[in-house]
Amino acid sequence: MKNKVNIAVIGLGHVGNYLLNELNTKKKDIEQKTGKRINVVAISAKNKNKKRKFKINKSIYFSNPLDIIKKKKIDILFEIIGMSDGISKKIVELSLKNKIHVITPNKALISKHGDYLSKLAEKNKVNLEFEASVAGGIPILRTIKEGLATNKLYKVYGILNGTCNYILSEMEKTKDNFINVLKKAQNLGYAEQGNPKLDLNGYDAFAKIRILSSLAFNKKISKKNCLMEGIENIDYKDIDIASQLNFRIKLLGITEMVNGKLFERVHPCLVKKDSYIGNVNGVMNAVIVHGKPVGESVLQGEGAGPGATSSALMSDLLSILRGNIKHPFGLHNNKRKKALIYNQKNSSNSLYLRLEVKDKPGVLSEITKLLANNKISIERVIQIPDHKKKSASIVIITHKAVEFRSQNLINGLKKNKNMIKKPILIRLF
Amino acid sequence: MKNKVNIAVIGLGHVGNYLLNELNTKKKDIEQKTGKRINVVAISAKNKNKKRKFKINKSIYFSNPLDIIKKKKIDILFEIIGMSDGISKKIVELSLKNKIHVITPNKALISKHGDYLSKLAEKNKVNLEFEASVAGGIPILRTIKEGLATNKLYKVYGILNGTCNYILSEMEKTKDNFINVLKKAQNLGYAEQGNPKLDLNGYDAFAKIRILSSLAFNKKISKKNCLMEGIENIDYKDIDIASQLNFRIKLLGITEMVNGKLFERVHPCLVKKDSYIGNVNGVMNAVIVHGKPVGESVLQGEGAGPGATSSALMSDLLSILRGNIKHPFGLHNNKRKKALIYNQKNSSNSLYLRLEVKDKPGVLSEITKLLANNKISIERVIQIPDHKKKSASIVIITHKAVEFRSQNLINGLKKNKNMIKKPILIRLF
Repeated sequence: MKNKVNIAVIGLGHVGNYLLNELNTKKKDIEQKTGKRINVVAISAKNKNKKRKFKINKSIYFSNPLDIIKKKKIDILFEIIGMSDGISKKIVELSLKNKIHVITPNKALISKHGDYLSKLAEKNKVNLEFEASVAGGIPILRTIKEGLATNKLYKVYGILNGTCNYILSEMEKTKDNFINVLKKAQNLGYAEQGNPKLDLNGYDAFAKIRILSSLAFNKKISKKNCLMEGIENIDYKDIDIASQLNFRIKLLGITEMVNGKLFERVHPCLVKKDSYIGNVNGVMNAVIVHGKPVGESVLQGEGAGPGATSSALMSDLLSILRGNIKHPFGLHNNKRKKALIYNQKNSSNSLYLRLEVKDKPGVLSEITKLLANNKISIERVIQIPDHKKKSASIVIITHKAVEFRSQNLINGLKKNKNMIKKPILIRLF
Repeated sequence: MKNKVNIAVIGLGHVGNYLLNELNTKKKDIEQKTGKRINVVAISAKNKNKKRKFKINKSIYFSNPLDIIKKKKIDILFEIIGMSDGISKKIVELSLKNKIHVITPNKALISKHGDYLSKLAEKNKVNLEFEASVAGGIPILRTIKEGLATNKLYKVYGILNGTCNYILSEMEKTKDNFINVLKKAQNLGYAEQGNPKLDLNGYDAFAKIRILSSLAFNKKISKKNCLMEGIENIDYKDIDIASQLNFRIKLLGITEMVNGKLFERVHPCLVKKDSYIGNVNGVMNAVIVHGKPVGESVLQGEGAGPGATSSALMSDLLSILRGNIKHPFGLHNNKRKKALIYNQKNSSNSLYLRLEVKDKPGVLSEITKLLANNKISIERVIQIPDHKKKSASIVIITHKAVEFRSQNLINGLKKNKNMIKKPILIRLF
């Protein structure tokens, strides 16, 4: 690479705008560390005149990002639009084909097209870097690819979505319900105003889990959604009862190899209050890696926001400027095999069940019979009556139950005439 | 670098022997990830015939490691002897001068001669890598140099000595005294049999803090010991009283920039039981980094042992094999300035004081007068009488006190005729 490096930034939302300011103010520091002088020569965004925290140089603005590749000599391009397809995919594809290094925080794009795009990068001998796509400021991808490079990893899990973690923490703290706390999260900028669904339903965490598995286990990115549940159905009541039982509810992403098969899932979990993961609160992210010989490694940091994301984007930039050309997934594409997929119906978990039932004789007997029929044994039961409504909440913690039996149980419970509401099931971690 | 890479391993204690086995069993994996085929062509150790966990190939054994450089074509050398000078320094020096990359877990060597050796490495265009010198399996140096590369870091602290952390945790758990728990740690291999002093007196953690500061703040390695205290004087009584006050005692290493001046120190601290750092127990290490824009990042993992250390050594190896030639301290030696040193006498901390005194009238009045004379105000006092011995323990928690006043106070207390033992001072974190 020459000593003068031309940079393009596509997408100038909160993250893109913050990054642009970092690029402009840290030129000297970057030159000291890498010997390269960077220059932002092109920017593009949907709206040229939108109000932004830092001023942009309109003389280098392009309304169509694809024009930049034709009209300017670019060495490194930042894609910060964030779509899994469309213009995001187009600009990354075009850049790689034109031997331009690409840096992106776009987990939707990488988890969907990462295999194809990394192949393209390798073919054109440029870097495709996506540290910022998982866990914001925590350099977890670099840690797996480099810091723990020769370890045999067998499990990676953690809190990967700051929005959900904030909402769950805040519900516990304020004893408020999901809808109110979601509104608060939106006002604070922790959840999207328009459509927060992809955070809340587990999709965002699942995209990250996919990227983590392929890096940790040297596999192609899996296309299957093993088990994906979000936090939309978590009620304050569950947080409260869990708390009395010395648990907290956390949305965990988990990936592991079970007898050579890949088992990826994202769902809410009851975790012990005094566990490490039970104490990662607010918008923080945490990732725990189990490997041999290193043992257990923990990384924790801010999972989102322009600052943390820019930190990761800039680390990708320095890696490229230092001339560290690498395989995007740590080893050559043709060495990465397709993963066999574990059948999640065979997995087993202890369960937390909350059943809202009519308060009349024989109900508990019917329920416990259903559990017995599904070979699920009970660890403890709490029945909380609501005399006004002539109903009761039955909370059951079970011993380990195989997933397909748990699903049978839930189907059976749904059909029971004494159920007032849909039964709630949360797995214990 | 050619595709066939010759490796030498110097030092075959627990770590060296474990590493050798990793190098031999992971050749294929390494070739897949880097395209390079490694071959261990020379080994050296004090004792050729010592009993080791993994068998060594005696046909490549050299009794004098310096002969290896003369007689063999080596590309990468591991120095795992561990001395700050002597043969450790000689073999590293000779290797770098002969354009051989060097990897070492030797914190004593790097914290003492790191500036000189990194200059030598840069001059000869080879790598000097020392990830394993700080916090074992936690890739903290790589994280600072690469993952957080353009952040402005202002504070790094943590639990950097697994031996001390194990002893303090175990004393709390078993209610046993320092000497007994030290013996147990020695039997388990957590503390050195011969001379555990360098772990216990804070020297080991201080060496790590020096390496961390120079990386985090882009400075030359400081030669001054600002404030270094170990855990040799921690009594179970202090752990017990601290626990009643909702604290734990931890040996922390802390480095930060205070008004442009470097403030490094290692000493026992009272930390809150419900804080993150208060819950890092046993041989675990943890490092917390404060930076802008990334915020607070936490890394935790096994801090010692052959497995964790080998994990870090192997990550250094892969970095070299991937052709990632870098400045050992992240930027060129002539860009690293000498640090101005903060005068630790101006720092301030709340204090935990335990005073063993004669149980007679006026003693508390004398002590509180001494505190008042030194402008140190009291937050709380607990007096625990020992009627048998006609003595009492006075425990005082103070508000923030400037260090030079705290030292004056201790000197004053030592002279007081009613003191039965040396006063105990532990700083609050």
